[in-house]
Amino acid sequence: MDYPTAEYEARLARAHKAMGEAGLDALFLCSEAEIRWFTGFRTLFWQSPTRPWFCIVPIDKKPIAVIPEIGTPLMAQTWIDDIRTWSAPAQKDDGLSALKLAMAPYINIGMAMGHETSLRMPLADFEKLGRDFADATKLIQRLRMIKSEAEIATHREICTIASNTFARVDELFHIGQPLSEAFRTFKIALLQAGAEDVPYLVGGAGALGYDDVISPPSDTPLQKGDVLMLDTGATLRGAFCDFDRNFAFGHAAEAVKATHRTLWQATEAGLAAARPGATCYDLFEAMHEVIAEASDTPASSGGVGRYGHGLGMQLTEQPSIIDWDQTVLEEGMVMTLEPSMPVPGGGMLVHEENIVIRDGKPELLSVREIGELRVIG
Amino acid sequence: MDYPTAEYEARLARAHKAMGEAGLDALFLCSEAEIRWFTGFRTLFWQSPTRPWFCIVPIDKKPIAVIPEIGTPLMAQTWIDDIRTWSAPAQKDDGLSALKLAMAPYINIGMAMGHETSLRMPLADFEKLGRDFADATKLIQRLRMIKSEAEIATHREICTIASNTFARVDELFHIGQPLSEAFRTFKIALLQAGAEDVPYLVGGAGALGYDDVISPPSDTPLQKGDVLMLDTGATLRGAFCDFDRNFAFGHAAEAVKATHRTLWQATEAGLAAARPGATCYDLFEAMHEVIAEASDTPASSGGVGRYGHGLGMQLTEQPSIIDWDQTVLEEGMVMTLEPSMPVPGGGMLVHEENIVIRDGKPELLSVREIGELRVIG
Repeated sequence: MDYPTAEYEARLARAHKAMGEAGLDALFLCSEAEIRWFTGFRTLFWQSPTRPWFCIVPIDKKPIAVIPEIGTPLMAQTWIDDIRTWSAPAQKDDGLSALKLAMAPYINIGMAMGHETSLRMPLADFEKLGRDFADATKLIQRLRMIKSEAEIATHREICTIASNTFARVDELFHIGQPLSEAFRTFKIALLQAGAEDVPYLVGGAGALGYDDVISPPSDTPLQKGDVLMLDTGATLRGAFCDFDRNFAFGHAAEAVKATHRTLWQATEAGLAAARPGATCYDLFEAMHEVIAEASDTPASSGGVGRYGHGLGMQLTEQPSIIDWDQTVLEEGMVMTLEPSMPVPGGGMLVHEENIVIRDGKPELLSVREIGELRVIG
Repeated sequence: MDYPTAEYEARLARAHKAMGEAGLDALFLCSEAEIRWFTGFRTLFWQSPTRPWFCIVPIDKKPIAVIPEIGTPLMAQTWIDDIRTWSAPAQKDDGLSALKLAMAPYINIGMAMGHETSLRMPLADFEKLGRDFADATKLIQRLRMIKSEAEIATHREICTIASNTFARVDELFHIGQPLSEAFRTFKIALLQAGAEDVPYLVGGAGALGYDDVISPPSDTPLQKGDVLMLDTGATLRGAFCDFDRNFAFGHAAEAVKATHRTLWQATEAGLAAARPGATCYDLFEAMHEVIAEASDTPASSGGVGRYGHGLGMQLTEQPSIIDWDQTVLEEGMVMTLEPSMPVPGGGMLVHEENIVIRDGKPELLSVREIGELRVIG
């Protein structure tokens, strides 16, 4: 397990309290992150869509795992005692009977069904359960939003690994290097620095910023005057970092430098506003004010739609730093500050840091970027 | 796009034909692999669970993308013309109105809802659509099961990269190396050899095999006499390889060598049986006969449950090489042969190869393992 049993006991105690307040007898889980959060079960085997995995969290006891036989040895290494299995894949009854039996004692069962969730089991099988479920989306998301010190330590460690790798850009990247090679080189450097995995690495390059922040890299060589942005979601023991860095090759256009300066100042404003008791809306407004003052078209460009988000076992988690999210910041929230804006006459820039909400100033998990765009090569 | 437009046109023509036969007006897609198969849209951004992505495939025209704004530049690079977007994440209407509008002209819409599928959108939003969908699981899975020569070439390339990396085991691994370091080293070597990504790497080690084939690696050092198994799902342009190799350090127990020999012979039997017109059941039986003859407990051990599966844009795809799967093998199916069995008095061994069903003998995509367990170090 990634954490000692006490971590999972504390999570369960918080869950039981919230379930009691919501009048729920049990939770039904079928997604990777939720099952891992409650049980400690972590495997890359979720890459295979073949088998469904289930977990029931009763209000009066430890979670019950209802899983394919192939998962028994790993689940037995977690703190879970009640492990029910079936031989999967099965032609007819692919775990449904075992799942129904585990659910049978409970009347009011909650599950995640709202925004930012998926149903990680066959819809037709879900419908065969013939049950109504309560919407426990917010309950589950709120539980996961507040990280323990043990979780924060893992995030700190993977953010440090990424910061150390970004510190090597001078040596890793050069003019003439195809963007695809720069990505590959950076991924290898992250692994060499101690990252366990690099599930997410995106970026872009151009003289006046980039148009797109989610594409795979092209083979276009980096050119003098390009600004390169790399945004990485590397992991350690299943915990993500998620931040980017921009650097120019040889020189940078004034518009790019000015835009980067504005984004850095927006992040400063975010750091100043990120206090327990403030809302995501407040945080958005603090950053947006800086951006709106510097730009005629201050809307978050490239369709990013927000200025940051929660971070955890998934690359993006609740809440959103956006003008409609009234979530109140609390100590222990791990978040990204991620302002973006258009470069006049060009594409866009994004700048991102990772923080923990603390009593007072937030703790920076990423090594704070310097105020001026870095020029290398 | 990973393939020329003609590839997607051919896929759509096959889909239209199958939809016509099934009496479907349209398909509704919301998962990564399905949307990529029809549109060519490939991004790691699916790592973020925040935003849903939709696609409608009408029977009389090209697919319609209904996606978050952030995806517009990348989708515009594909062959899709009709791209409808919304500003996501949205508090209330997170793409539902746009989706309903795109669905409105069609009456009988099919979607994937059976085994090996998920609903990659919020269940509550799905229910708000207020529509019934036909089960198009088999239709979509059958379309994806047969690969084009262009797809096969990509699989061949990533399998060659993995084979070349496995050829370096003597130099990459050594006694005393923690298993976690061996995994990291292998992942880096795969990237250096040209893999784009390594979403899947599992394995195990022990003197008499391993108990578990889906766990993350421990920090236990490799010991003389251990057999190490590494099973990798590396990718190139989004296409997976999926095979493993076993090798012993210094020497191997007789039981391990004999078990490996049996598995290799089972794979030989699989290669001999894998012909167009044979069924998955036939293929299972051919391999199972070899294993049953050599072992008193011939059941596929470790709960693996089958002797191989389809391979493609996902690590595991339909069909399954199992005693209840009557799928008829056809030319162009990319598959794994993956027999497993217990080691007498110990854990288990798994052995895996990747093949393409051809007219006559199958084509091996992985460099065929030698008949005897390799001993290194």
